[in-house]
Amino acid sequence: MERATGKSPSKSPLTKSMNGSQRFLAACAGLPVDRTPVWMMRQAGRYLPEYRAIRETVDFLTLCKTPDLALEVSLQPVKRFGMDACIVFSDILIPVEAMGAPLAFTEEGPSLQQPVRAMADVDRLHVPDPHEETPFVMQTLRMLRAILREETALVGFCGAPFTLAAYLIEGGGSKNYAATKALLYREPALLHALLAKLADTIAEYAAAQIAAGAQAIQVFDTWAGELAPDAYARFALPYEEVVIERIHAANVPAILFVNGCAGMLELIPRAKADVLSVDWRIGLDAVRARIGAKPALQGNVDPAALLSTPSTVVEAAHEAMRAAGAQGHILNLGHGVLPATPLECAQAFVDAPKSASARAT
Amino acid sequence: MERATGKSPSKSPLTKSMNGSQRFLAACAGLPVDRTPVWMMRQAGRYLPEYRAIRETVDFLTLCKTPDLALEVSLQPVKRFGMDACIVFSDILIPVEAMGAPLAFTEEGPSLQQPVRAMADVDRLHVPDPHEETPFVMQTLRMLRAILREETALVGFCGAPFTLAAYLIEGGGSKNYAATKALLYREPALLHALLAKLADTIAEYAAAQIAAGAQAIQVFDTWAGELAPDAYARFALPYEEVVIERIHAANVPAILFVNGCAGMLELIPRAKADVLSVDWRIGLDAVRARIGAKPALQGNVDPAALLSTPSTVVEAAHEAMRAAGAQGHILNLGHGVLPATPLECAQAFVDAPKSASARAT
Repeated sequence: MERATGKSPSKSPLTKSMNGSQRFLAACAGLPVDRTPVWMMRQAGRYLPEYRAIRETVDFLTLCKTPDLALEVSLQPVKRFGMDACIVFSDILIPVEAMGAPLAFTEEGPSLQQPVRAMADVDRLHVPDPHEETPFVMQTLRMLRAILREETALVGFCGAPFTLAAYLIEGGGSKNYAATKALLYREPALLHALLAKLADTIAEYAAAQIAAGAQAIQVFDTWAGELAPDAYARFALPYEEVVIERIHAANVPAILFVNGCAGMLELIPRAKADVLSVDWRIGLDAVRARIGAKPALQGNVDPAALLSTPSTVVEAAHEAMRAAGAQGHILNLGHGVLPATPLECAQAFVDAPKSASARAT
Repeated sequence: MERATGKSPSKSPLTKSMNGSQRFLAACAGLPVDRTPVWMMRQAGRYLPEYRAIRETVDFLTLCKTPDLALEVSLQPVKRFGMDACIVFSDILIPVEAMGAPLAFTEEGPSLQQPVRAMADVDRLHVPDPHEETPFVMQTLRMLRAILREETALVGFCGAPFTLAAYLIEGGGSKNYAATKALLYREPALLHALLAKLADTIAEYAAAQIAAGAQAIQVFDTWAGELAPDAYARFALPYEEVVIERIHAANVPAILFVNGCAGMLELIPRAKADVLSVDWRIGLDAVRARIGAKPALQGNVDPAALLSTPSTVVEAAHEAMRAAGAQGHILNLGHGVLPATPLECAQAFVDAPKSASARAT
């Protein structure tokens, strides 16, 4: 189990001159790399002055739907910091809006103004054609791929059915997901109907992103970690699996992120993702000890650890690299970049795998 | 490891006629019981019409500080449902206010109006004498104990230093504890100074509750589960241990609750609590498999599972009892009762350990 030893991967001639796409995709496959690849969830965002400058001129949804602008903000962090992967700028609720759920963004975050509470609400939603109804996402991906070529891996993304269902049922963010869980425990058939329709939608949507140039898809089941393990097994996992199967059918790796995964960790690999993106509440060495040498791991520095100094950030990044082992690991945060993150700390994080002390571990 | 087998405990003549205190304290000690004891975190609260009736006449803080009223609301759920334990009605921030931090309660929850951000803020706080500065809590406990006698166990409680520090630093609730963690990663000495003062305060406060009649103390480190495991080991665990040592010095069991404990589960027993109160995001069988036969476990039904029907509630309660094993288990929720909980579901939960199907497992 070489990847769990914390030693450097074998240096073959092939690994000496990897570009970003090669490095990222090799890590997804658990293969040797010249160094650990790195990117940050929500790397295009409010901590960047150039992002805030654009957001002063345009609202969030318009930004998502205007390919020239979405292209620009997707590239901003890559140009500034030099990550190995570029994730397309968008929102997980874009395909949900295309299903027929009116969407707005307020100061408090996303708001779905017709919450789903009955079967009639599910019936009103349709499975959209992603090329027809969300063409701006595919256009942004095509332009990104042409610009990035193979220097930087292009990552598409989608929400997983359970997390999107929770948004639809709560009508937005939630503290305890009481409405979603009340349906889960009281009307499971209704929730399954909603999840099935979402799974069809998201599988198509992921496939369209791959056709437009995405080299990997990250599936965000952010809220599934709020479920009891048996509820996760029944209401989240089977629908993650549907989406991941479709990604695999297009010959692209799938990365699965469940925030707060530690309690259900042994179940998650059943969704067959190539990479498990892990939050910061568990050490990557503990993850390896519990699930074994596969799948590859992504993560998992606490985003709040970047509210410090560059030397603290480098220490935290190297600790995550040590815990994960050099092979089958993509360095990332355990959740999205916080808006208050200092730029020098973001730079230190992206540079951490390039420094000598990391290679020496 | 009898308690993990899911079989009934041995029925000795001693276990045939237990009262609530005996049953609860035997479970805390991992000893045989006649049946699994049960109570619910936040069992005195808004889901009860008789609680809402009192709250219409008095604000939350006044209720906490008026022994006759605090007594009444503490007893309400016990009278209605017949739990084995009665927790004193209060708030974890009561001793923090006594340290000199002005406290208010708004619609959004508690608000500490002078957030701690510098050493001068820590210096301004003092270690209060709990008998002098929070006499109403001790008075409520004395009256409760006189009324309950041994029919129902009397549980006192306190916040753990890390969770209270996070309240003081954030100034109230928080989504990501960015201010607390920024201090943790940037000015650890300042955070340790605050934690040490809180540990002194809370150790005294717990001892005073025991002197006033509490038969067990639950220590709420509710937010410590938001820390990375290494940060938990440095900033939460040592201060939990200080408080628990003091509880043990008074010959009373300590129950420790960390919400979202799954990622740091192997570390938590180092705090030496008699009982680990577990949230719902991990199965109790998985907890046993990871930490062994001790300490006793409390929990862990998802509070949202009570937003359903009595039969679903009984099923969830029996599943938790099966997963925990019959010995060394206190049936409880994985977090506090939700305000929307139907009364018949709360009753079904409290009755679940008494039913034949539970005994037959």
